[in-house]
Amino acid sequence: MHSANLDGVPEAADLILDKGHVLCMDALWTSYPQGAVAIRGEEIVAVGPRKDVLAHYSTAQRIDCSGCAVIPGLVNAHTHLPMSLLRGLADDLRLDVWLHGYILPVEQHFVDPDFCYLGTQLACAELIRGGVTCFADMYYFEHDVARAAAEAGMRGVCAETIMKFPTPDAPDYETSLRYVADLVDHWQGHELIVPAIAPHSLYMCTETILNEIQQLAVAKHSPILIHISETEDEVQNWVAGTGSRPLVWLHDHGLLEVPSSAAHCVHVSEEEIRIMRQHQVGVAHNPTSNLKLASGIAPVANFLRQDIAVGIGTDGAASNNDLDMFEELRLAALLPKALGSDPTAVPARIALAMATSMGARSLHLDSAIGSLEVGKRADVAVVRMQELHQLPHYETTDQNSYSRLVYASKSQDVRDVVINGQLVLRDGKLLTIDQKAVLSEINAVASDVTRFFIERETNVFGKLVAIGGQLELHETYEVQAKGVIKSHDDFLRRLEDSGLEVLLNTSRDQYDVYFFFADARQGRLRYREDNVLRDDGSIEPIYTLTLVGLVAEAEYEHSVILSRSRFTANADRSLRFYREYFKPEAIREIAKHRERYHIRYQGTEFAVNIDTITQPAQDAAFLEIKSRTWSQQDAVRKAAQIGEMLAILGAHPDDMRTDGYIDLLHD
Amino acid sequence: MHSANLDGVPEAADLILDKGHVLCMDALWTSYPQGAVAIRGEEIVAVGPRKDVLAHYSTAQRIDCSGCAVIPGLVNAHTHLPMSLLRGLADDLRLDVWLHGYILPVEQHFVDPDFCYLGTQLACAELIRGGVTCFADMYYFEHDVARAAAEAGMRGVCAETIMKFPTPDAPDYETSLRYVADLVDHWQGHELIVPAIAPHSLYMCTETILNEIQQLAVAKHSPILIHISETEDEVQNWVAGTGSRPLVWLHDHGLLEVPSSAAHCVHVSEEEIRIMRQHQVGVAHNPTSNLKLASGIAPVANFLRQDIAVGIGTDGAASNNDLDMFEELRLAALLPKALGSDPTAVPARIALAMATSMGARSLHLDSAIGSLEVGKRADVAVVRMQELHQLPHYETTDQNSYSRLVYASKSQDVRDVVINGQLVLRDGKLLTIDQKAVLSEINAVASDVTRFFIERETNVFGKLVAIGGQLELHETYEVQAKGVIKSHDDFLRRLEDSGLEVLLNTSRDQYDVYFFFADARQGRLRYREDNVLRDDGSIEPIYTLTLVGLVAEAEYEHSVILSRSRFTANADRSLRFYREYFKPEAIREIAKHRERYHIRYQGTEFAVNIDTITQPAQDAAFLEIKSRTWSQQDAVRKAAQIGEMLAILGAHPDDMRTDGYIDLLHD
Repeated sequence: MHSANLDGVPEAADLILDKGHVLCMDALWTSYPQGAVAIRGEEIVAVGPRKDVLAHYSTAQRIDCSGCAVIPGLVNAHTHLPMSLLRGLADDLRLDVWLHGYILPVEQHFVDPDFCYLGTQLACAELIRGGVTCFADMYYFEHDVARAAAEAGMRGVCAETIMKFPTPDAPDYETSLRYVADLVDHWQGHELIVPAIAPHSLYMCTETILNEIQQLAVAKHSPILIHISETEDEVQNWVAGTGSRPLVWLHDHGLLEVPSSAAHCVHVSEEEIRIMRQHQVGVAHNPTSNLKLASGIAPVANFLRQDIAVGIGTDGAASNNDLDMFEELRLAALLPKALGSDPTAVPARIALAMATSMGARSLHLDSAIGSLEVGKRADVAVVRMQELHQLPHYETTDQNSYSRLVYASKSQDVRDVVINGQLVLRDGKLLTIDQKAVLSEINAVASDVTRFFIERETNVFGKLVAIGGQLELHETYEVQAKGVIKSHDDFLRRLEDSGLEVLLNTSRDQYDVYFFFADARQGRLRYREDNVLRDDGSIEPIYTLTLVGLVAEAEYEHSVILSRSRFTANADRSLRFYREYFKPEAIREIAKHRERYHIRYQGTEFAVNIDTITQPAQDAAFLEIKSRTWSQQDAVRKAAQIGEMLAILGAHPDDMRTDGYIDLLHD
Repeated sequence: MHSANLDGVPEAADLILDKGHVLCMDALWTSYPQGAVAIRGEEIVAVGPRKDVLAHYSTAQRIDCSGCAVIPGLVNAHTHLPMSLLRGLADDLRLDVWLHGYILPVEQHFVDPDFCYLGTQLACAELIRGGVTCFADMYYFEHDVARAAAEAGMRGVCAETIMKFPTPDAPDYETSLRYVADLVDHWQGHELIVPAIAPHSLYMCTETILNEIQQLAVAKHSPILIHISETEDEVQNWVAGTGSRPLVWLHDHGLLEVPSSAAHCVHVSEEEIRIMRQHQVGVAHNPTSNLKLASGIAPVANFLRQDIAVGIGTDGAASNNDLDMFEELRLAALLPKALGSDPTAVPARIALAMATSMGARSLHLDSAIGSLEVGKRADVAVVRMQELHQLPHYETTDQNSYSRLVYASKSQDVRDVVINGQLVLRDGKLLTIDQKAVLSEINAVASDVTRFFIERETNVFGKLVAIGGQLELHETYEVQAKGVIKSHDDFLRRLEDSGLEVLLNTSRDQYDVYFFFADARQGRLRYREDNVLRDDGSIEPIYTLTLVGLVAEAEYEHSVILSRSRFTANADRSLRFYREYFKPEAIREIAKHRERYHIRYQGTEFAVNIDTITQPAQDAAFLEIKSRTWSQQDAVRKAAQIGEMLAILGAHPDDMRTDGYIDLLHD
């Protein structure tokens, strides 16, 4: 037995967890099949065989843990608690679509102190019921996260996120830095909350921001949490931009001098692993999230070989979709086996250590929590071990108990939870959170978010605006007419005869992809790749995204129409992104070579395009004359001028077309 | 609504599952948010909006499924039910150690009809509680598996295992074939049980056996279940032996003419996938088992792309360690995303289909089960959807309900289960299995198995015997003496002077690895690689495993001792296997060059070894004289002769050693 009371006279304890199979998760893998844990105040005062513990401590509150395992409370080493409110909002999408199409817009619109407080309550309820006693959170309004956690009696590292872009709680990073300084001042020394600083990631920060964060962390004695190398793309971009891999870069810039925990670390080199070891960077491994977002599988066995402390995280419930540490620790044991073709990799007890003692070490909290040892904070989970899915029990080796917990137990087998000496779950009932009240509040939030999304999902324009943060919205009206002509050469002859003044001639290949939607009134979305031929023969591609109204706003003589595009912007994401994000009902493509002549006619400048359609291939060429317009009167005047020019340039009235190419050439 | 009753007059149903969110899992992904399922006898007679169903059917037994999902019962497409009794017996071991060191010995010793009956009861209890309504089993004594399943009201494919080696229920494959013929005759046409034939795998069968199985399957209209390409090694061995990959070989030999379901299919080529498609071979994907045994990750997305029916299995609980289909279907959705770097691979509803409709198709049972459609058997699971870990609910797309089931629901959320029209689980309580009785019986079995293993684990000799099936056990006594001599040359001069008759001289390099155990009385295990130099200069390595008694049985004059080795046999497994299986406390190595002279002295033959120790390197050489002995009197006589020979050959009495090299040269 290990005990704070070495005398023969029994002392008083506040709580004794009695008769359980105690797995201490200490360095020696101590366990007591008929054990007990005595708790006084916030601390563990004795662990050992029950007879020994009961000989040294007495208490009015003794909990019978027969048939249960008594283990250190689980440590969720990386999560975004308030995102529990977004659980199941959008799944099975690519990271950019998921993030930019769903999560960021809803965060921008909904995330405020109340959202974070409520989301944390929901998350803490789930965590506690699943045997988790400590979390490491990275989100916004961390003051409110900390407040909700502390009220729930939950231990947590609350790290305020800082990045170079505006966040829901700060227009700029300086504001975030002030916020985090206040956060640390307010919470440091709290019995449950460890305030911390979370630069979101390298790619979302700048060197200046990271430097200021490190200075603040040193000054405030605060740990740093950061996302590192979650995706291969992110690493490749960083290498392309800086010439160094992320952890090498951090090391070279002296940015690893503060106790740090790095989430994900899916794509790290051997050199980076050595750097992590040198600076004692903890890892938060998030198996489900990394699988679900297709980021990959972190090289956990390599980390362990280098004695790097690896904790396990659920990541946010929006990418998991729950906060079930039993699922994660099972995966943490299973994945390295397949990855390394080695069934002995990460045996059960090592996985359990990753979720307890090593998890605490990965967050630099191992002096206080992570194992059942005298003097440590009393964070304990009691897990039922006589459930159907766990039976029978074998005790043929010293591994069976760990293997039963990791491979055959579930979060719902957790019966009791103690945090910092306080019972927070008893017989599956939450003692510090009003579950019913929380659930009714979250339903209201979910209804609001659902309404926001349903409105947006059924509205292409709304979806476009939602991702268009930095893009300009402007409506454009054009007067235009289009006709079939014999050929480009025929046009050139007529142009010469006409004596019209050509201001400029440009040449380009255009590839257009049109998205069609079930509700035709939404208009169509055009993704255009415009390959402009420069004078030096090089090609400069320009990508634009345009929402095209379906019908002409007005029609004039000579088939001249007034068209409107409500939105044109640089398309800074891939066609693939837009396709997955807008989910069009149909997609059509058109490719053409365009010779553009800027022609002045009666003092007004017109764009005259001679288009040769290459896909679907056409024999004839098309003559198109366009001009922007801003008023009804101006439109009428220009329509008349276009009519005159058409005649001059050889388009017969019968050959005029009011449809766009996409309607004209498909069907 | 879909209904068997098309009239206006309501008919009687036996059971209506009312007010649930019905997900039909039919080809059109039909769902009814406020739905109902009417059941009469064994069949579904109506599915649709509750108002419509209630207008056509009335019943005394209406179950309120508010806040629940109503889905087809899950199909566990590959398992070994009775192995539930071996859950957690041995984990985190390499396949050969796990199989040959633990599972096969215990199966050989314990598996009988009672074991299979009881194990199936335990497994069915866990399956039903987890929403599973149909399994595909491969084991022994399948008659007893079928009996237990039928009594539990559980649907299952019961496939008797056939292989070229003796099994717990048959000394040879002909007996197994007769068993399976009886099995089919007895159970075919049963409302719940589909009897089937399970050639274990290609490598455990012969072409003759596979041919006879196919003929039997054709004659009896029975499906075939088989393990295919679970490990890379197995495939490489098959290719090395036959020149073809397994499925190509089956195809070329005309062995895919019967409806088949292939478990695992982790390592299959594109050509094999085309063959599977051509013969409509179903796949049983076992994600947890494949990870845990480090077999790899099956190319599920490729199967789906080729429209191959992929079901999901838990495999046996001994390699999982539970029968939780919710865990498996989550993994079935997650793994292909990471494997293909594509987060849109296997979206939630496809994973759920793999566990229901497609799972049924993979077993060629899709005309009867797998979806909630009129005319199909009433196999239904009702899943609570208002649990903390599932909330809030979003209904922003048509995917949310599936994603909530796959990513955020657990087997313990299953509330009610109906199989073949019969309620077998109601409000989490088993109605057809006496759980208490089963649990008390399995504890007795577990105690027996534990005793068997503890005896073996603490007894090196016992462990040796356990894996030594075909190996001979024999005790050997030797009289021997050992002394330090100057050199081999000095020995040769003295040998020449002595006039002793040399019958034979051989030369060899010996590499010995000794396993030491915590309990020294167990003796030591020596793994010897004996590189005998042949006359033609070639080397013939011989591997032997010897259990060496620690102390001499007797000592005589001149430090001659009587030693005993209880067991010497060819070591037909790798040193690695023995190391992981015997788990020695310490390992020591010794290497030597041995010149052996077979010498006749006073009519008795002795082996005289001149050993030059190369590791740990020694200056002096050792002279060793040995002779086998069978009686005390013989031993005394030979000890005296050895004493005389030592003097003749130059070993001084002070230079005699009674310790073996391993004790002499280490410490």
